[in-house]
Amino acid sequence: MAEAKGNGVAEASEFRALDEKSLLDYIKATPAISSVLGNRLEGLSIKEVGDGNLNFVYIVVGDGGSVVIKQALPYVRCIGESWPMTKERAYFETITLKEHGRLCPEHVPEVYHADRKMSLIAMRYLKPPHIILRKGLIAGVKYPLLADHISDYVAKTLYHTSLLHLSTTEHKKRVAEYCGNVEMCRLTEQVIFSDPYQISSYNRWTSPYLDSDAEAVRSDNILKLEIAELKSMFCEKSQALIHGDLHTGSIMVTSDSTQVIDPEFAFYGPMGFDIGAFLGNLFLAFFAKDGHACEEQERHEYKRWLLGTIEDTWNLFEKKFITLWKEDGSGDAYLPGVYNNSDVQLLVRKKYMKDLFHDSLGFGAAKMIRRIVGVAHVEDLESIQDTATRAACEKRALLFAKMLMKDRRNFQSISQVVAAAEEQRA
Amino acid sequence: MAEAKGNGVAEASEFRALDEKSLLDYIKATPAISSVLGNRLEGLSIKEVGDGNLNFVYIVVGDGGSVVIKQALPYVRCIGESWPMTKERAYFETITLKEHGRLCPEHVPEVYHADRKMSLIAMRYLKPPHIILRKGLIAGVKYPLLADHISDYVAKTLYHTSLLHLSTTEHKKRVAEYCGNVEMCRLTEQVIFSDPYQISSYNRWTSPYLDSDAEAVRSDNILKLEIAELKSMFCEKSQALIHGDLHTGSIMVTSDSTQVIDPEFAFYGPMGFDIGAFLGNLFLAFFAKDGHACEEQERHEYKRWLLGTIEDTWNLFEKKFITLWKEDGSGDAYLPGVYNNSDVQLLVRKKYMKDLFHDSLGFGAAKMIRRIVGVAHVEDLESIQDTATRAACEKRALLFAKMLMKDRRNFQSISQVVAAAEEQRA
Repeated sequence: MAEAKGNGVAEASEFRALDEKSLLDYIKATPAISSVLGNRLEGLSIKEVGDGNLNFVYIVVGDGGSVVIKQALPYVRCIGESWPMTKERAYFETITLKEHGRLCPEHVPEVYHADRKMSLIAMRYLKPPHIILRKGLIAGVKYPLLADHISDYVAKTLYHTSLLHLSTTEHKKRVAEYCGNVEMCRLTEQVIFSDPYQISSYNRWTSPYLDSDAEAVRSDNILKLEIAELKSMFCEKSQALIHGDLHTGSIMVTSDSTQVIDPEFAFYGPMGFDIGAFLGNLFLAFFAKDGHACEEQERHEYKRWLLGTIEDTWNLFEKKFITLWKEDGSGDAYLPGVYNNSDVQLLVRKKYMKDLFHDSLGFGAAKMIRRIVGVAHVEDLESIQDTATRAACEKRALLFAKMLMKDRRNFQSISQVVAAAEEQRA
Repeated sequence: MAEAKGNGVAEASEFRALDEKSLLDYIKATPAISSVLGNRLEGLSIKEVGDGNLNFVYIVVGDGGSVVIKQALPYVRCIGESWPMTKERAYFETITLKEHGRLCPEHVPEVYHADRKMSLIAMRYLKPPHIILRKGLIAGVKYPLLADHISDYVAKTLYHTSLLHLSTTEHKKRVAEYCGNVEMCRLTEQVIFSDPYQISSYNRWTSPYLDSDAEAVRSDNILKLEIAELKSMFCEKSQALIHGDLHTGSIMVTSDSTQVIDPEFAFYGPMGFDIGAFLGNLFLAFFAKDGHACEEQERHEYKRWLLGTIEDTWNLFEKKFITLWKEDGSGDAYLPGVYNNSDVQLLVRKKYMKDLFHDSLGFGAAKMIRRIVGVAHVEDLESIQDTATRAACEKRALLFAKMLMKDRRNFQSISQVVAAAEEQRA
């Protein structure tokens, strides 16, 4: 500790993993953090709460305020040093929090301080009753503003980082910078676009119930054709600055607040990947609901709320996105001199939104499949105690997702998709 | 001159525009160039021959050998300092010549020396009888090896810089670097994807004959929908390292040699842009042929040769590209663990080639349209002296290109496209 004292930020120019003690010294030497916490730094409460798979997360409370401090280590926390992972992800998380926060401050926590060498971010502490959305969904809590808030976040962040708003000069500059986050993209490529479709020691599923279903995914040539197209979009299409991991575990909520966190997978990729992540995870919550002990009427109502939220999210997103486009449209994609009449404007917008809708359904389906037969599962399903019941829920979700990936281009509206989910049988 | 002497390469670390005199000093101070030329440097012949729109090009001949030296100035040569253009294009031309040359040395001239600060490249002089392919086509010369050679060049360069061969790590690193060539991409965006479809002072066409045709392009909403899709692919899809300007003026030929030059527009973009550029320019040569004085039987035969070359180029490209894929396939796009049976391999290859075919037709059509109603025309048509005759040729080419852009997805094979060109009436 002594050697840290007085060196502060300068010393922080070399990476070292912090613990609760050394973090205190770091905070004392960093006015951008300490100024948020108040005057009596000796009385700070520091608590490590990282329950995710990757990082260390500290809640720091002082007499004048609180912060969350997140540090990325150069490996996957829950596995250890045997699975290395670039700590540069904290840098990309930082610049994305700042950029998305600038575009949508209502739904992105403020960054107080960031330290690239230390892979560290200090940001607003989302106080209780904020909880992870996924946990709220499992508990059966309804969030009446969720669709409105998330559609706001995706519409604003995706629109303003696309060529509908940016010049190609600005766009290519940003694309180039985010190419640096390739290691995180590669992790996604592996766990979402590859492993579920091949033999991999990381894959797992509810055995023996889903043995033949997992095998069916691995031998479905049409599904492989579709996942190839989605993967190529993920690797090659620099459409907008996407969050890159927008599932219900990356969102914190109360009844009137919705905050998007953890954009460490961010890069310039296809917009549909973010929208699909959110919708796909709501569908998982929907299919999981039947496995949770619950009064029948309540279950029915909650499932209706989930499906309604899915519908509202897409419909509100589409409306808000088009409104932004109509009010601005200053980017290089559709020059006003070319798209100079309302007929052609309608035509290109319809085409754009239709393609984005189908991309979103495809990526949403991919996100569902990987949560059932891939490495990382979701608590919505995992928390179903009875194995046979869980397997039945998973089977319906998987069948729905496979159908959705293959037939996505046949859906004209989100209500048709929701109707198909309701009708899905095992 | 005196201040240059003795400083050589060191002095060359700051940009200065060379002339024939200062170039001699530069050569003397640069062993990588002088060693190619022989011993008696005082007797060098230096001749400025740049007939393109952009750069200064010197042919330098010594007693032991020859080189071409190309210098980019920070503006468009044929217009002057009023149209600035990044001289960094010489750097991207250099690294592309080297990379494409590594992948296909038979059809790319060797780079002896490059100087980024001076925007200068010294490369193999393609001696007579090498001429620009476009001039050979106008003269009615047949090049029996052209389709074989160009299909070789595009198959090798595109395949090996795509995710069929590269890891996503390597791919993203290269994509990031080429984002730096954005100014050249922006020029393409303007002259190919925007200006022909809007009022622009740069546009020109054979007036008054094509007045209504130019107007029809500017008010064709369906065409605008299609060019939007192609433009978005150009701006967002990092598929492979493309040449970026592969028309018949960027190729030098003899009866047995085919050399691709001038890749200053290179970046990671859609493969179809290169293939389409070449095919589209052959179609322009085909439609121009009727305007050139020529014996009827000879004209007929030459048009047949052009169409045969178009067919052969695509068909050979497809065959060679698939062969490379089958023999290698080491990239991250289609992992062998996933694409593990011949049925699925056939399926994904068919899909890939079909999409690439339709992309190529779309970009080819865009290249044709811009040469008839945009800023830069082609000598094939411009050299037709009689205005009415030229206009008739241009009209047929334009109608064909518009049809091709709109209906490209309905073509199953290149022979169907060629048949449509033959049947095109004004």
